[in-house]
Amino acid sequence: MNDEFAFIEKIRPITTSQSSLVKGIGDDAAVYSGSSMDEIVCIDTMVEDVHFTKKTLSPFQLGKKALAVNISDLAAMGAVPTYYLVSIAIPATWAEKELIDLYKGLRAMAENFQMDLIGGDTVSTNDKLVVTVTAIGRIEKGRALYRHNAKPGDVVFVTGAVGASQAGLQLLLDKGRMASFTDAEQQLIVAHQEPFPHVEAGRLLAKSNKRMALNDSSDGIGSEAHEIAEASHVQITIDRSAIPFHKGLTEYSLKQKVDLALFGGEDFVLIGTVARDESHEIDALFQKYKHPFYIIGSVEAGEPNVFLKDGKSNYEIGKFGYNHFQGRGEQK
Amino acid sequence: MNDEFAFIEKIRPITTSQSSLVKGIGDDAAVYSGSSMDEIVCIDTMVEDVHFTKKTLSPFQLGKKALAVNISDLAAMGAVPTYYLVSIAIPATWAEKELIDLYKGLRAMAENFQMDLIGGDTVSTNDKLVVTVTAIGRIEKGRALYRHNAKPGDVVFVTGAVGASQAGLQLLLDKGRMASFTDAEQQLIVAHQEPFPHVEAGRLLAKSNKRMALNDSSDGIGSEAHEIAEASHVQITIDRSAIPFHKGLTEYSLKQKVDLALFGGEDFVLIGTVARDESHEIDALFQKYKHPFYIIGSVEAGEPNVFLKDGKSNYEIGKFGYNHFQGRGEQK
Repeated sequence: MNDEFAFIEKIRPITTSQSSLVKGIGDDAAVYSGSSMDEIVCIDTMVEDVHFTKKTLSPFQLGKKALAVNISDLAAMGAVPTYYLVSIAIPATWAEKELIDLYKGLRAMAENFQMDLIGGDTVSTNDKLVVTVTAIGRIEKGRALYRHNAKPGDVVFVTGAVGASQAGLQLLLDKGRMASFTDAEQQLIVAHQEPFPHVEAGRLLAKSNKRMALNDSSDGIGSEAHEIAEASHVQITIDRSAIPFHKGLTEYSLKQKVDLALFGGEDFVLIGTVARDESHEIDALFQKYKHPFYIIGSVEAGEPNVFLKDGKSNYEIGKFGYNHFQGRGEQK
Repeated sequence: MNDEFAFIEKIRPITTSQSSLVKGIGDDAAVYSGSSMDEIVCIDTMVEDVHFTKKTLSPFQLGKKALAVNISDLAAMGAVPTYYLVSIAIPATWAEKELIDLYKGLRAMAENFQMDLIGGDTVSTNDKLVVTVTAIGRIEKGRALYRHNAKPGDVVFVTGAVGASQAGLQLLLDKGRMASFTDAEQQLIVAHQEPFPHVEAGRLLAKSNKRMALNDSSDGIGSEAHEIAEASHVQITIDRSAIPFHKGLTEYSLKQKVDLALFGGEDFVLIGTVARDESHEIDALFQKYKHPFYIIGSVEAGEPNVFLKDGKSNYEIGKFGYNHFQGRGEQK
């Protein structure tokens, strides 16, 4: 233990209403009650100059996003977020105020879902900041949604507009986050900097109790469709004319919009499949809760693959999306 | 997703017998059944050139140790380890073979406790390797052991010999792990490189169902005694003549041995307190299971502090142990 980071202990207390369930926070491990539900757990790491730079995200936004990407993984299972843990490797290039803002961002995102911060580790590093979040959630027993449940005859759906995040990232890399932007550009930038995980959509889908496949679009709907196709041993066709492009992309060419939607990534909408017969019921459910729901394609029998239908043409969609800031990309 | 790290997917499958409990491994989150027990979760990060170097640990040893330090946190609560998740930020300076060895080390440690690897994230970084492990365990409801339960009249105990790890680290930093060492030096080096968490001792203590405080000695028994003293609002006195110095330290001066034991850290024995009347029962239990158990001091009323009793003298022990390889140390 070292006094230098002592301020972090003060800014990472338990945040919300569930804290009475948790004990041992001051110890090196946290304790919480088991339940009759299923537990969901995931981990994600963001590395400075690989997944973000000080030019693309403020420390507060980094905190929000580091937790959001994990919550999105929980949402893709249909889970209710409950707890999180944070480990940060901190270089000397980060000031105390920046670290406090980072934790404030984590807390701001957590409060949306009444998640408690129940543990963490703070260490020094000689180089770039690395933040790793572990998020924990719960779901009714046996109800978790996986990506291997797609079947021929399903439709493919997404729970929101796509393509904005990568476009926003490009603007930030070109100009930096302190530049001035048009209203449309600002929408794209916010989509990149402050994604909001689709927990409500995941819960609607899980509670509908239908057989379905589900994933979050962290790597673009083209890449994620590939993951569903491979896990489910099916073929997926996405209808170009049905893709809901983000409204901030109006000025972009159709080719640009399609590329951004398929491989841009980090839109953090959910993408899934459900039997065509049952999709109307899901659609009605989403309308009732005023949550977007778009049918964008179909599932067929065949070797695992993904195609883009564009009018009368059918293109095979490659598996890999854009990498991050450098050639050596991320793999999950 | 990127093909470059695809081999890691192949070397981090589920390892042991509990795998039937877990679903969704291929998804971004893992699912396991809740239970009527309490869940324990902790997270720890090791940074290259801060917590280890290629000179001090082989990749295989790094894998073992990265998991061991987390299991030790579970042991300090009295828990049974169940699952773990691993996130690694990988620089180009690490070869594929080294990464495979690292995962083999994780698995080797996990197999001791039939822990399943249920999730992970593999990302690239431009600089030093950072490995973060989240470990999950379980304990009978309400039985977790905390550091805030010490009371005046307790004795202080440790579950193993101390001082070796830091001495081994110094040898490794001086000569490098490929040098030749005496038998005694080799014992110290192994203590640093391959600590084995005291899960069995933690379980014996938890199942004894006594009121006690418990901690693991990741930062040396002096520092950890301070944590217990502060969390429990008591004063602790350690009897110098009762400290079980590691047998590899025979050639060291008494002053060196005391410093290594109090502040050396990373010995990963458990340190705790229990009522003097009940300590005999615990002692007998540990004898039955052939596990070391040493009474090294006592708990008194008073402002939180730690003293070293050496014959007729009483010294106040400072709070902070040795830092890691550089001035900017670790805080948990």
